[in-house]
Amino acid sequence: MKLTGKKAACVGSGVIGAGWAARLLWNGIDVHVFDPNEEAQRQLDEVIANADHALAKLTLAPRPVKGKLTFTNDLAEAVRDAVFIQESVPERMELKKSVLTDIEAHAPADALICSSSSGLLPSDLQSDMRHPERFMIGHPFNPVYLLPLVEICGGGQTGKTEIQRAEEAYKFLGMRPLVVRKEIDGFIADRLMEALWREALWLVKDGVATVEEIDEAVRLGAGLRWAQMGTFMTYRIAGGEGGMRHFMEQFGPSLKWPWTKLMDVPDLDDDLLDKIASQSDDQVQSTGAGLDFRGLERRRDDCLVSTLQALKVHDIGAGVELSRFEAALYARAHPAENDSAIDTPDLAQPLKLYETVVQPDWVDYNNHMTESRYLQVFGDASDGFTRMIGIDSDYLEATGSYFTVETHIMHLAEVAGLEPIYTTTQLLAVDEKRLHVFHRIHHGRDDSVLASAEQMLLHVGRQSRKASAADPVILDRLRNVMDAQKELPRPDHAGRGIGIKAR
Amino acid sequence: MKLTGKKAACVGSGVIGAGWAARLLWNGIDVHVFDPNEEAQRQLDEVIANADHALAKLTLAPRPVKGKLTFTNDLAEAVRDAVFIQESVPERMELKKSVLTDIEAHAPADALICSSSSGLLPSDLQSDMRHPERFMIGHPFNPVYLLPLVEICGGGQTGKTEIQRAEEAYKFLGMRPLVVRKEIDGFIADRLMEALWREALWLVKDGVATVEEIDEAVRLGAGLRWAQMGTFMTYRIAGGEGGMRHFMEQFGPSLKWPWTKLMDVPDLDDDLLDKIASQSDDQVQSTGAGLDFRGLERRRDDCLVSTLQALKVHDIGAGVELSRFEAALYARAHPAENDSAIDTPDLAQPLKLYETVVQPDWVDYNNHMTESRYLQVFGDASDGFTRMIGIDSDYLEATGSYFTVETHIMHLAEVAGLEPIYTTTQLLAVDEKRLHVFHRIHHGRDDSVLASAEQMLLHVGRQSRKASAADPVILDRLRNVMDAQKELPRPDHAGRGIGIKAR
Repeated sequence: MKLTGKKAACVGSGVIGAGWAARLLWNGIDVHVFDPNEEAQRQLDEVIANADHALAKLTLAPRPVKGKLTFTNDLAEAVRDAVFIQESVPERMELKKSVLTDIEAHAPADALICSSSSGLLPSDLQSDMRHPERFMIGHPFNPVYLLPLVEICGGGQTGKTEIQRAEEAYKFLGMRPLVVRKEIDGFIADRLMEALWREALWLVKDGVATVEEIDEAVRLGAGLRWAQMGTFMTYRIAGGEGGMRHFMEQFGPSLKWPWTKLMDVPDLDDDLLDKIASQSDDQVQSTGAGLDFRGLERRRDDCLVSTLQALKVHDIGAGVELSRFEAALYARAHPAENDSAIDTPDLAQPLKLYETVVQPDWVDYNNHMTESRYLQVFGDASDGFTRMIGIDSDYLEATGSYFTVETHIMHLAEVAGLEPIYTTTQLLAVDEKRLHVFHRIHHGRDDSVLASAEQMLLHVGRQSRKASAADPVILDRLRNVMDAQKELPRPDHAGRGIGIKAR
Repeated sequence: MKLTGKKAACVGSGVIGAGWAARLLWNGIDVHVFDPNEEAQRQLDEVIANADHALAKLTLAPRPVKGKLTFTNDLAEAVRDAVFIQESVPERMELKKSVLTDIEAHAPADALICSSSSGLLPSDLQSDMRHPERFMIGHPFNPVYLLPLVEICGGGQTGKTEIQRAEEAYKFLGMRPLVVRKEIDGFIADRLMEALWREALWLVKDGVATVEEIDEAVRLGAGLRWAQMGTFMTYRIAGGEGGMRHFMEQFGPSLKWPWTKLMDVPDLDDDLLDKIASQSDDQVQSTGAGLDFRGLERRRDDCLVSTLQALKVHDIGAGVELSRFEAALYARAHPAENDSAIDTPDLAQPLKLYETVVQPDWVDYNNHMTESRYLQVFGDASDGFTRMIGIDSDYLEATGSYFTVETHIMHLAEVAGLEPIYTTTQLLAVDEKRLHVFHRIHHGRDDSVLASAEQMLLHVGRQSRKASAADPVILDRLRNVMDAQKELPRPDHAGRGIGIKAR
């Protein structure tokens, strides 16, 4: 089911429901949100503000116009024209069943209805529904607007085509649906999370470790591997050359050692609750950088954005999903039938040929973009320019290419990691063998100039490895750019030499 | 215990032992490695090659000269002069006890002996030792050269000061020691990993999910949060404004629901082993990009490097450890007590302050050093120059530092990967706030000039972040250099502007 141009409804707007609303809106879908709670609208607005902050950093791909949000206290109004309804009310069977009955009474007959339940069985939830075939679990992970996983689990009466429609809808939203093969309590992910959580509670209860120590034990070790590989691939690689069977044979037996207390369930009495709540407060003091609740959320989101981007560079795990989503956003922005309509850049202005965010490995100790990365970005701008005038792989192979022989950089302002930047390029002069360009790096938010680079490029023959005239076709294109830009003012710093004047 | 200038021994060089060797070497420590296995040395070399690849990307901080590696088949030779001995032989109680006895027979009496055991109790392991007070568990996580966590767990006879010495040693190596409060099987991290693993095995055995689906369920959802926050902080934030107590009260009861099979241990029979091994092979086919075992390791490491760098930008979790380690590397590069002992170079000549080989990741597809790396090398030359005149970590903290504001590079010749290069630096002018330098990059074999860079550096105050006068002591040193170099001819290209002359 493609959601473009259609309406969605979120029933319940706590942390999860509000996260769904944010993801839908950001994909250009209009969303009606229903929640009877008095505080709901304020909390919804806060979650959406956090989501906007995170999503703005997530990708440079073209974003659709944000959908329209309507908040209502009237369930009928919320679902009346929705084709996709996501239920996220509290995790109580009777409440959910009654809300589902109300939704059905007012929603279009073919609207998909998905529940965010993290553990209730869909067969139970759908048992009183009139059209149970279009109901299933669509279980997301917090924050819903950033994490790609959604578990789909149908009940006994759920239709196969309806599951396919839901898969399509979630993919449209940039998610990775995982269809659960058997209807079991807790599905897949929550079973794993629950196992870890139960063991962690025992460690606290027994005084083996504090809340903070347990989190450190996860995030400084295994957690870093789980984020990219999960658990089986981690062990397979750890097993060395022998692969998975070797690993299992070597470490399998320890499963039977009495390491864990998992045979039993810790009693969540007041003592344990007090212990965990107060240790958790201590942890926020010592690792939370004085942040309040929304600040902690925002820091979590910033880290998730950076992690997703890092994994994208390596084409692994959640990074693969981000790449797919970006490709889809580009495709939606330039549908193939419109290829011919892509605008030719305005040659009379400095040319915007390259944009990026300051990558995490480009920054120095102070989190500022390090010196040599400026030259790298200027080099990318030069590459963008030579590509624009027709230096492609055929030309490189047959004729030659432009090499930078001289560069004059002026550093004007600092820029921090993950900030958006872009370049503009002005052509100052051209002859048969040479290109004289002036690049600027701008901050993506306010267009201010962070640095400039004047460069001389020399055309070098593929065979001769010596300076040679460029192909006439290339030279024609260069002269066109030169003509178009001749009215641009000459940059102040062009032609400048370096020196300290005598005083 | 500071390890600088001391020797370490790794007893056992499988995946874990070789990882320890790589971490020690990279910290400038000489390491003796003992392993009787015929294949050991080849595997060690392969792991160290992977580690070199990863660590070269991890940080721009100054790296100490790599330690010297000695591989030996003689345990006595390996441990004789070692102050720090890390045992990583297979996980069998009797084998480990016998190896520990052998180590003790030949090691210095005050050498620390730490075992990489992931679950054996230190009281048991040390029961036959003559000096059990200096024995403890130091349990790392694979890959040891990248993940910062190490669990320290002493036995009944372990000394308190010895534990403190081990903490210092591990911190020196860029790790974060977590001292386990109670001696329990599996310590902390492995208990948590084991819980997740056991539940995962049940899901496969029961046909609920495949190996690949389970890994997807981890790495596209919860794993991304565990990498930065662990489990308690994740839930605290998910609990919304109500904090931890609210979360526990809301979700705690589900602990008692019969979600998991954790009450029982899956039988690792041939059927289950076959199922997991073949599903794991399928997973490598579908998500492994056709990589072999070492390739998968390298991809894992590249992702870990990027994740660590991303977390560093946000000053969270393992990123905090990376920042600390980098700060320590900078401090080690400028040892305060040795300042006066640095050899005074011949100031009357251009100063040779930096040399290296062209690193494998610095070259383009033609195997030539890529443009931006020239600026990186020139930046390293400037750093060498400012260090020489006394800008150390204390000065950076208290007063300020020099920033490059302008650079003019001339590219004169190409240089291939792995070729040796060095820089020379000539001081052209100096005033209270500015340094005007002229660097050259030379080929290490024939001293020819590959490129030059004229740079203007500006002194910027630590607090004000504005141009300010350098400390008089620094200015005196600069004037000394200026006086010594005043007879040097002015470089031809100094003060030059870029342009195409009309013909």
